[in-house]
Amino acid sequence: MRSARRFAAAFLAAALLTLTLSAPAFAQAPETAAITAMMQKSADDWNRGDIDAFATCYKNSPEIEFIGPTISHGYAGMLATYKKHYPTKDAMGTLSFNKLDVKSLDAHFATVTGWFHLERNAAGGGNSDGYFLLVVEKTAAGWKIVRDDTTGHAPVTK
Amino acid sequence: MRSARRFAAAFLAAALLTLTLSAPAFAQAPETAAITAMMQKSADDWNRGDIDAFATCYKNSPEIEFIGPTISHGYAGMLATYKKHYPTKDAMGTLSFNKLDVKSLDAHFATVTGWFHLERNAAGGGNSDGYFLLVVEKTAAGWKIVRDDTTGHAPVTK
Repeated sequence: MRSARRFAAAFLAAALLTLTLSAPAFAQAPETAAITAMMQKSADDWNRGDIDAFATCYKNSPEIEFIGPTISHGYAGMLATYKKHYPTKDAMGTLSFNKLDVKSLDAHFATVTGWFHLERNAAGGGNSDGYFLLVVEKTAAGWKIVRDDTTGHAPVTK
Repeated sequence: MRSARRFAAAFLAAALLTLTLSAPAFAQAPETAAITAMMQKSADDWNRGDIDAFATCYKNSPEIEFIGPTISHGYAGMLATYKKHYPTKDAMGTLSFNKLDVKSLDAHFATVTGWFHLERNAAGGGNSDGYFLLVVEKTAAGWKIVRDDTTGHAPVTK
């Protein structure tokens, strides 16, 4: 098991992300396209080094929840934690998503699963990978993440 | 990192569960009581060694999803996997939940977070612990689990 400290870093990295998306040849449900666009924007913001913009992929609410060995709540704490753990462009690195899969729950909620890869140099802490389950909500400001359970894990090749 | 095999066992164990619940002194939302009762029933079924009854805590649908290093779908596969990994009463052991927390999404969906502890003798594979995020749906047959992201992890004492 990686240490709690290392896990926290992976957990945070995982929440961030860039997308490596292949354009599907078939029509997607409207919410899939909108949710995918939200994820892509968050990745673009991250890879520009703009954590404040990136953070807006989460719902601005004290009730959003980050699930790990310890659970944390709320937009303000999330933003502060990201800034603490990713103070430099090297630490932020470049995120990409793989195997991104959106599944509707109802008109207002969906789940997103996938893998993240954080490409970083040694100064930034090196590469990191993991998988996640997100719950996203259709809010007045668009689709936003309200639950984030990300687990650091070496890539599975199969 | 524990091996994929060991992870799978922990992942499965985690989905099972018994509840260690303290009776709250305040009134709960109706869905919290109903969801807690569903979880408690699943634990009781598990601890009687009845995997078929236990499995009914999940929605009987090919679309339910189990998130881990690999993702699996569907009721039938879930039931077969549980029976494969927990062939004896020793392997099933005794499950308990801790820090169970139900949060509503809307009238039909909620999330549940918590920790599981699987108490087992050496013949059964020894003890196992971890945390989880579940998405539960209010179906015609009651509240049922539709997403299960369980991560094996040593208990956090803080």
